[in-house]
Order: sequence, then structure tokens, then C-alpha cells
Amino acid sequence: MREPREPREPRARVPRDPATPTPATLSPDEVRDIVRRIVDATSAGAGTARMTTASAPEPATSAAPGAVPAAQERVAIALGASRVGYQGHAADLPGDLARYIDHTLLRPDASATDIDRLCAEAAEYRFAAVCINPTWVRRATENLRGTDVAVASVIGFPFGAATSEVKALEARRAIRDGAREIDMVINIGALKSGMLDAVREDISGVSDVCHEAGAANKVIIETALLTDEEKVIACQLAKQANADMVKTSTGYASGGATVFDVALMRETVGPKMGVKAAGGIRTAEDVQAMIAAGATRIGASAGVRIVTGEKGAHGHD
Amino acid sequence: MREPREPREPRARVPRDPATPTPATLSPDEVRDIVRRIVDATSAGAGTARMTTASAPEPATSAAPGAVPAAQERVAIALGASRVGYQGHAADLPGDLARYIDHTLLRPDASATDIDRLCAEAAEYRFAAVCINPTWVRRATENLRGTDVAVASVIGFPFGAATSEVKALEARRAIRDGAREIDMVINIGALKSGMLDAVREDISGVSDVCHEAGAANKVIIETALLTDEEKVIACQLAKQANADMVKTSTGYASGGATVFDVALMRETVGPKMGVKAAGGIRTAEDVQAMIAAGATRIGASAGVRIVTGEKGAHGHD
Repeated sequence: MREPREPREPRARVPRDPATPTPATLSPDEVRDIVRRIVDATSAGAGTARMTTASAPEPATSAAPGAVPAAQERVAIALGASRVGYQGHAADLPGDLARYIDHTLLRPDASATDIDRLCAEAAEYRFAAVCINPTWVRRATENLRGTDVAVASVIGFPFGAATSEVKALEARRAIRDGAREIDMVINIGALKSGMLDAVREDISGVSDVCHEAGAANKVIIETALLTDEEKVIACQLAKQANADMVKTSTGYASGGATVFDVALMRETVGPKMGVKAAGGIRTAEDVQAMIAAGATRIGASAGVRIVTGEKGAHGHD
Repeated sequence: MREPREPREPRARVPRDPATPTPATLSPDEVRDIVRRIVDATSAGAGTARMTTASAPEPATSAAPGAVPAAQERVAIALGASRVGYQGHAADLPGDLARYIDHTLLRPDASATDIDRLCAEAAEYRFAAVCINPTWVRRATENLRGTDVAVASVIGFPFGAATSEVKALEARRAIRDGAREIDMVINIGALKSGMLDAVREDISGVSDVCHEAGAANKVIIETALLTDEEKVIACQLAKQANADMVKTSTGYASGGATVFDVALMRETVGPKMGVKAAGGIRTAEDVQAMIAAGATRIGASAGVRIVTGEKGAHGHD
């Protein structure tokens, strides 16, 4: 029997240590250094995975149970996991994937019936949350009353180009309607324009609303539209703005979550913040690779298939 | 010399005649009848256009100058226009396409520099408006002060799945920031769920905010996600909710404007409301086909190419 590793609790916000003020932004050298370390780790991991397929790779023994492993090790695990099937790393991987998954339905043409089905599935499989558009939050909250499934509402979705005032109000209203988690999109255009104070304040406005109400702020940086340097800066700004989690993608840009981006984001935010991988995650193997790379939450519309497939995969191991 | 036909002014709202209350919704028979008439007109128009290419087709003489021609005639003109080059209908088509065009930049990663360029182009070519995300409305308003280019802000964009309260507030704030036109997205999921009162109230909340401030409400129905029946119902609801214009598309769904949809929407809303065609419109021929089908405004990111191409096409006529 493998021991399930509990996902980190996003609602238990870790206050920033006031004695160690965070810098306004990373220097270009610091950014390049982080990106280089992750690229090196990714390459090393890929090579290791390929070379150790025949004999099972050594289990990762350096990490304490439940601790986030070092970047290189995580990426090696992740790439190994997605390519050779985990034989050597089973002890590092969670048994109950459902508790990592935000069961997600964000299509603009999703109907009330679709939302009801999503909620019923989330309750049945005990997903961490349903992730839905604001217009459905009240309905989903009623559907999920008495379960341990949270309601997560997207905010400023999927473009992130609403004003900060409107994002904060939208978050406040979603929480009033029952949301316990907020998945907001950063102001991508402001980031691209170097308006970093605006990006940080946009996030912290929503963080404040969330934390007043005991809700969690998950910050979507939309990796597909960013350079690696911008990804690092976005994560740093989210951390400075007291976000609880950074999230890769809306699922509506040209690309979704990658192992590289999850490792880069984990490296940037450190071990105490959440990292949510979302966009294009369709199998239990995808989920496990993202968790191994540092993700603590997974957004997926294929949650039921993932967890039933995951059970099937266990049966065939 | 062709006489340019002035685009209808969306800000001059036509109050609904209180003596003729609109029905709550169309009956299924009425919907089917409208769709059938447009389908018939489209087929007839296509046939006519093909058959009359050799000899120039008769000019449309039944319509008064500036009036909206009947549906069949419009669709015939449109399909003829897009296939045979307008020779017989030049007098019906506007000379100054720029005044029909909302110069549009809605990509989430558009930067301040991109917005500044958009505004400069809009002022130079005298487009009707720039159409942008709310986060840039204040900047664009400053850029365009002293010009006759309006600022149009999208609202609830592009999913339309924000709550009605948030859409109305977002519109109010955009108008405060300088927007004179609002391009809101309907609640598509509510329409799909048959929650027609909710769809209508969602629109009328924004219409009220707009009209208090002398701004126009343009209602995006996102045709690519709707059945023909749903397109008709959405237009009818927009009309009931005192919208100034219906608009085909966000440009971010699987499809954009079609001649058929523009004709269907024109037929549904009648001659007094605006119809905006948007999504995938890239050439002067596209614009002219949409106008011939009943559009009074065009949303396009290729506005400069369209108007410079349109001038070039005149030179070669």
C-alpha cells in the first residue's frame, strides 16, 4: 500500500516573514539563473530517465516524506514518471489523485445541467473543488452543500484584462455566492508592458478580498503567452501579493501546463506556496508528472477519466 | 462617384413603442419561420449571383436611399457582392468603409505600446471606434481625446459568464474611464439552459448603465456557439432589453461572422437596431458583403489593411 501524500492546504495562508522583505522584482541575472537551473535539471532528468528505463531507477531518498524535493530531482522524477512508468518512484506519488484535482468546466456554453453533472461527479469522486465561471457559483454551492468539495470561481477569465477594481469586486461577489477559492488571471498585457506595480496590485486586491473571507487566491499566469523570464516575474509578483497558489494556464490559450513550467514556477515561489497545473492534463500519468514536478493542485476537465483510469492503471501494475 | 451611406448612429437609441409590447420570446413556429426565410433568401441569392455574373444584375431599386433592404434582396446583394464583385450594386455600398469599422485589439497579451499604435491608426484612418479590453480604456481615451474616434470597451469578455451585477459594474467603470460604447457578451450558458429571463436581465442591466450615460450597448451573441433558433432568440432578447446593436462574435470562438448570420440577425431585430459583424473579417470585400447583408458596424483587427486594400481596389475597378 502506498501512503497518499496530502495535498498542501491552500487556505492555510503562510504570512510572509516581515524580517525578510521580498525584492520588488528579480534582477535579470537572477531570472536567468533560475531559468538556467530548471533547463539544466530538465535536460539531466530527461537523460536519466531514458538511461534508466531498463533497470528501475533508484528511489528518491533525499526528500523527507511530504517535502518538496529539490528542483533537479523533481524534474527527473517527473520526466522519468511520464516516460518510464514510475516503477522506482511509486512511494513518492500520491495514491488518491482525486484530492489534487479541481474538476473543471469553463466552456462559455456550459449549461445548468452540465454544471449539475460536474458537481455530482465532484461529490462522487471527492475532487478537491469544482472550478467554474462566476455565473454558476451560487448553483454549484447549493449542489455541493454538505460535501467536502470546494467551489472555485474563475475571475477576470480568461483574458485577465478587466480592471483591478472589477476583479476585486468579482471575487468578492463570487465568495458571497459561496466560492472558497478564486482562480484569477493576471493582467498579462500590463506584465508585457513592464507595469509590474500594476500587476502586483491587481493580484493583491484579490488576495485581500480572499483572505478577509478565508478564501484562497490562485493566480493564473498563462504561461503560453509568457517568456520564461516573464513566468518567473509573474510568480514572484504573485508571491509578493500574498497569493496562495500560482497556476499555469486558463486552458484557453495556445498551450497548457508543462512539466518544465511547473518546475520553474515551484522553483520561483519556493516550497510554501501552492502550484496548480492546468490545461491539457488528460491522464493519471499527466497528473503524476505534474505533481512530481512540484504541483500541489491539478485543474482538469477530464477528472473522472483520470481517476477511473488511474484505478485501472493500478489494477494492471 | 458613389455616395457614401452613413452608418446608423448607435448612440441615438430608439425607444421601444410602449403601445406595441414585445413578446416574452418568439414561439418555436416564429423562430422556424424566420430561419426558413433567411435560408431561402440565402439560397436564392447565391443562385441569382451566379446566374447574373455575365450581365450586370439590376440595381436594387425597391429600397429607399439609406433604408435597409428586404432580407432576400440583402442576402442576394451580399452573396453576389462577395462572389461577383459588386458591379451592379456599387450605388448601394459605402465609399468610406473606415466609418463602419471598430478597430479592434483584444488579445490578452496586447501591450500599452500596441494600444497606443491602435489608437494612432484609428485617428489616422478615422475608424468609428477602437474596441479594446477594459484595462486599456483610460489610456485609449487619453490617446483619442480631440478625435472623432469613440472608445468601445468589451464587457464580460469573451465568455459572458460573469454575473449580471459584475457586468453592469464593469460597464459603469468602463464608461467612467471614457468608453462611449460597450460590447458585452450575453450569458451563453443561461441561454443554453433556457433561462431567458436571466439572459434578458443581464443585457438590460448593461443597457440601463449605458443609456444613463449616453453610451451604446452592443450585445455579442457569439453565433458560433448557438443554433439558428438560439441566434434568433438572443437577438429578440437583446431587442427587448433595449440594446442598441447586436453583434455576431467575440472573435475568440470557433467561428466568426457570416453573411447568413448577419442577415438572420438583421431580419430578427428589424431595421432600427444596429448589427455588428465581427470575427474573421479581413478584406474590404468581407466588409462590403456584411454591410450588404445588413451590418451597420464591422469589428476587425485588420482595419488598416481593409481600408488601404479598399482604396487599392477602387483604383483597379
